[in-house]
Amino acid sequence: MDELATEKEAEESHRQDSVNLLTFILLLTLTILTIWLFKHRRVRFLHETGLAMIYGLLVGVILRYGIPATSYHNKTPPSCSLKEGPVSTLLLNVSGKFFEYTLKGEINSREIHNVEQNDMLRKVTFDPEVFFNILLPPIIFHAGYSLKKRHFFRNLGSIITYAFLGTAISCFVIGNLMYGVVKLMQVVGQLTDKFYYTDCLFFGAIISATDPVTVLAIFNELHADVDLYALLFGESVMNDAVAIVLSSSIVAYQPSGANTHMFDASAFFKSVGVFLGIFSGSFAMGAVTGVVTFTKLHCFPLLETALFFLMSWSTFLLAEACGFTGVVAVLFCGITQAHYTYNNLSEESTKRTKQLFEVLHFLAENFIFSYMGLALFTFQNHIFSPIFIVGAFIAIFIGRASNIYPLSFLLNLGRRHKIKGNFQHMMMFAGLRGAMAFALAIRDTATYARQMMFTTTLLIVFFTVWVFGGGTTPMLSWLHIRVGVDPDQDPHKTKQESAWLFRLWYTFDHNYLKPILTHSGPPLTTTLPSCCGPLARCLTSPQAYENHEQLRDHDSDLILNDGDLTLTYGDTAITANGASGGSGADAPGGSGWSVNGKRSGSTSEEALERELDSREQELLSRGTRLVFPIEDHV
Amino acid sequence: MDELATEKEAEESHRQDSVNLLTFILLLTLTILTIWLFKHRRVRFLHETGLAMIYGLLVGVILRYGIPATSYHNKTPPSCSLKEGPVSTLLLNVSGKFFEYTLKGEINSREIHNVEQNDMLRKVTFDPEVFFNILLPPIIFHAGYSLKKRHFFRNLGSIITYAFLGTAISCFVIGNLMYGVVKLMQVVGQLTDKFYYTDCLFFGAIISATDPVTVLAIFNELHADVDLYALLFGESVMNDAVAIVLSSSIVAYQPSGANTHMFDASAFFKSVGVFLGIFSGSFAMGAVTGVVTFTKLHCFPLLETALFFLMSWSTFLLAEACGFTGVVAVLFCGITQAHYTYNNLSEESTKRTKQLFEVLHFLAENFIFSYMGLALFTFQNHIFSPIFIVGAFIAIFIGRASNIYPLSFLLNLGRRHKIKGNFQHMMMFAGLRGAMAFALAIRDTATYARQMMFTTTLLIVFFTVWVFGGGTTPMLSWLHIRVGVDPDQDPHKTKQESAWLFRLWYTFDHNYLKPILTHSGPPLTTTLPSCCGPLARCLTSPQAYENHEQLRDHDSDLILNDGDLTLTYGDTAITANGASGGSGADAPGGSGWSVNGKRSGSTSEEALERELDSREQELLSRGTRLVFPIEDHV
Repeated sequence: MDELATEKEAEESHRQDSVNLLTFILLLTLTILTIWLFKHRRVRFLHETGLAMIYGLLVGVILRYGIPATSYHNKTPPSCSLKEGPVSTLLLNVSGKFFEYTLKGEINSREIHNVEQNDMLRKVTFDPEVFFNILLPPIIFHAGYSLKKRHFFRNLGSIITYAFLGTAISCFVIGNLMYGVVKLMQVVGQLTDKFYYTDCLFFGAIISATDPVTVLAIFNELHADVDLYALLFGESVMNDAVAIVLSSSIVAYQPSGANTHMFDASAFFKSVGVFLGIFSGSFAMGAVTGVVTFTKLHCFPLLETALFFLMSWSTFLLAEACGFTGVVAVLFCGITQAHYTYNNLSEESTKRTKQLFEVLHFLAENFIFSYMGLALFTFQNHIFSPIFIVGAFIAIFIGRASNIYPLSFLLNLGRRHKIKGNFQHMMMFAGLRGAMAFALAIRDTATYARQMMFTTTLLIVFFTVWVFGGGTTPMLSWLHIRVGVDPDQDPHKTKQESAWLFRLWYTFDHNYLKPILTHSGPPLTTTLPSCCGPLARCLTSPQAYENHEQLRDHDSDLILNDGDLTLTYGDTAITANGASGGSGADAPGGSGWSVNGKRSGSTSEEALERELDSREQELLSRGTRLVFPIEDHV
Repeated sequence: MDELATEKEAEESHRQDSVNLLTFILLLTLTILTIWLFKHRRVRFLHETGLAMIYGLLVGVILRYGIPATSYHNKTPPSCSLKEGPVSTLLLNVSGKFFEYTLKGEINSREIHNVEQNDMLRKVTFDPEVFFNILLPPIIFHAGYSLKKRHFFRNLGSIITYAFLGTAISCFVIGNLMYGVVKLMQVVGQLTDKFYYTDCLFFGAIISATDPVTVLAIFNELHADVDLYALLFGESVMNDAVAIVLSSSIVAYQPSGANTHMFDASAFFKSVGVFLGIFSGSFAMGAVTGVVTFTKLHCFPLLETALFFLMSWSTFLLAEACGFTGVVAVLFCGITQAHYTYNNLSEESTKRTKQLFEVLHFLAENFIFSYMGLALFTFQNHIFSPIFIVGAFIAIFIGRASNIYPLSFLLNLGRRHKIKGNFQHMMMFAGLRGAMAFALAIRDTATYARQMMFTTTLLIVFFTVWVFGGGTTPMLSWLHIRVGVDPDQDPHKTKQESAWLFRLWYTFDHNYLKPILTHSGPPLTTTLPSCCGPLARCLTSPQAYENHEQLRDHDSDLILNDGDLTLTYGDTAITANGASGGSGADAPGGSGWSVNGKRSGSTSEEALERELDSREQELLSRGTRLVFPIEDHV
């Protein structure tokens, strides 16, 4: 009979799990249906993520107040004492039978009574690791994978400045302001538990990750200025990575200064070291895995897509297994894959992978936002502190301002195409907080400080997504930002920000990396000096000779930016094609091309740019294929 | 310091988890690369699933013998005693701090020492529920979703006979034979623990689920006879559902006969009741959800795909929440969605959903098979009993034979197009066991009997997949089964098995269900009697009038099978079109069409079939669009 009771309980628990998941799925379904309605009627004031939160809130209210506490589970769980520390596996001996238990986590002494309170509410609370290990990776990967925009690369310098320097500034400004707020709370007597300086810095780190998904969706729909789009999108993608590494290095900073929790120079430098180590490690790992994934499984799109999916996921796991940050690795893996691997996929597979990650990203994002809405009512350890909340709202405003305005001023000193005032205001306005801030906040809600942070983060996300997200369209017109821009027709098309460093890298990438790693780009035999002929022929994919005409649009996007390279490529391509009509890949031809390439490369850059400005317009209108009139040759 | 140690252990455990998952992903990656190589070189003797098993075996050997037991975890977990029964949540009090533990399962007293042995091997052992709740649903759904073949519907009667009656016969034959084997083992003294009659029946149920995925892949590639393909595929899809419900009703049978574990008429009928209840409940739930998912979100393929995915998953969860079998519900949901919802999706979404489920199915299937290979070495409680294994091989042979040959004989009495001898031999040969048998066997490995079954099932899967799977091509030529058949050109095209029951249902489905549930099919105004005019107009989608020319190929496939309906539809379409050229949907026209439909319906069936035989050839060659010469009318 005892066995039967256990079985019944297990069955009941399984059923409860199904019901909980079902709740979320129905929430998502409802969200999708409403989004469709909104898109159909062109409603723009509420984005799908905002909508998901509202539905989540409603269901949260129902779960909290609408359903009577189930009596079945309303008994205090039995406890048992041990002298040793907590272990991951525990055996329970019930009259000779052994049962295995696994550690779920520490419970606050205050919460022990909660355990018995309402099992239902506790059940809909997910393990925070789910967010990090299952929901964030597809979102971040998709962001990296869809980043491949020439406007992004053109603004790379500014984006990196905002993301790295800006996020660090924002983190420290917010951290210090919040420390002031905490001191004030102490004076007023609103603080009932410990709240350290490092906690404030941690809050600064988690709340500095912006997520302007709502704003960007509207930008996309209205075809707002592409440079502004690139700046915002690039910043938000990169600062997620910065925030996650920043927060974990602040946590690493804590133990050594456990007694003071105040500023300590050596611990600070250790944190900086941890930051640099984790970040560069994750970056390198992501980039390397992204590059390694170069598939040649043409003709079998299913295999290609599956392989692609597995490799991205294995990047995440590999980074986690090595102690790096999987999410950051996945981001750079996505960027690298979009840049290199994408060119190796068959036409069919590029579509498939894009759609696959699109669906995964869509589901994960909406799930997180609806869970946020739900968490406001079902999470059991909220600490609402009005002073802290108001202080946080002011602090994030000041933090964002001290990121955008000073850095824009500095960047404008170096930029040929300045970031105008209205762009700066828009970037200020688009500082929404989203999935990453939430995931970082929910990761650890064990202490008083963390619980207060979690509650505040939740409210900040709600407010920014609804108010700033909803106000995007009016703001755009108020700031006189152009909409309805065709990305290919914007006036500042060329050479704006192709700084020498970027240009150098780009030349290297285009002439050497792309040919080695992908089937696209010029054959290596054309770009390497003639002495490396045999090596070049060995490394060049046979398709590189054949597939000239298949040079993809996104490639040409980049190439058109840089007239110098267009010419190199153009020359090469035509010659290569002429030769391949004969024997495919012959050594004399190879050395001949490289001379060609060099000649054009040595021409004065400025002169070329002037010449190409007009040529480019022509190329654009005729499309890439006409640059290489292969049909005439073959 | 204690806290730090715990944190370190948690981190170590997280890292270990990542490494384990990474192992599987690398296994899958390796499998994909090798499959590609095989496909490239047209190797047919080893299918991807067989390959995945081999790689799994290799990794299992390495894990078992290659890696020294990690010393970190090599301590016996502490145990603690309680008087009450096992509970799902346990609190552990370690010097004032509380930790929450969740129940993982019962541990055999023999295994307590295993717990301390090798943590690594235990870690790569997944929770069996993962197979049921995560890996099987996409496989089964995909099977249901890709079932939409006219050859399937044409052979529906035979397929259902093999799947239901055949699986039940096989289950009882195997169960009884195995009971004899067990008795023999008792006599010889090879049996060291209890092994009941119900255990034997349970073994019969789990091992009766066939999975000829290898055979079908080769059929597909060689274009073998389509009817044989339909019979095999249909049987294997359906008997998975039968086996899962059968095994759970045998488990339900156990408690009431707990003392005897022998045959008991009342308990038997109770089991039959449970079987019918669960099966019909799951069937109804799947069918209803499949039908309900009729989306109208055209223009937003992403939303459509996401919704489609969510609805299929929610079917699974809903069924589980209601105590039915999620896997069975998902199967029928897939079949229904393919039949109805598919027609409502936009062109883009049909592709997307197909590809999405294809990838999921591919990954899940290969994961299960590679896990099987791994489990042979890493699973710690194998019981290899030579007598039981040899007995099982003989029993499944006899069980399969007593399913196929007698039922084929009976079916041939009623079939116009007989199932020939060589087809029967091929069906006999194609009785491979796969994912479902494994998932059912691993679900519960607590007792001695179940562990022996698990080991035997694993060996049967290995043997059948490698030997029967690899021998498919020689077997096909040995049995003189035609290959290279164009499915549209096979000689027995019409009226073979359109039994009156099926015909009746089909007419109902085509004339009423399809128009109500999808945008395709004839407008309801044409099929309902004239008195229902207003209702018909209200239920008919406006697209039904417009989209006549979009009648999809798979629809026409079915229609062409059934001359009677083709004519009805043909008339209707042309008339409808003529009318819609005028005012779109007017009542008098509606009644006129229904008269038309009725007239052709009342013509003698035999005469029509003769007439249509020649007409059909013409239709086939001209394609569906020409049946409705809409261009001429509009």
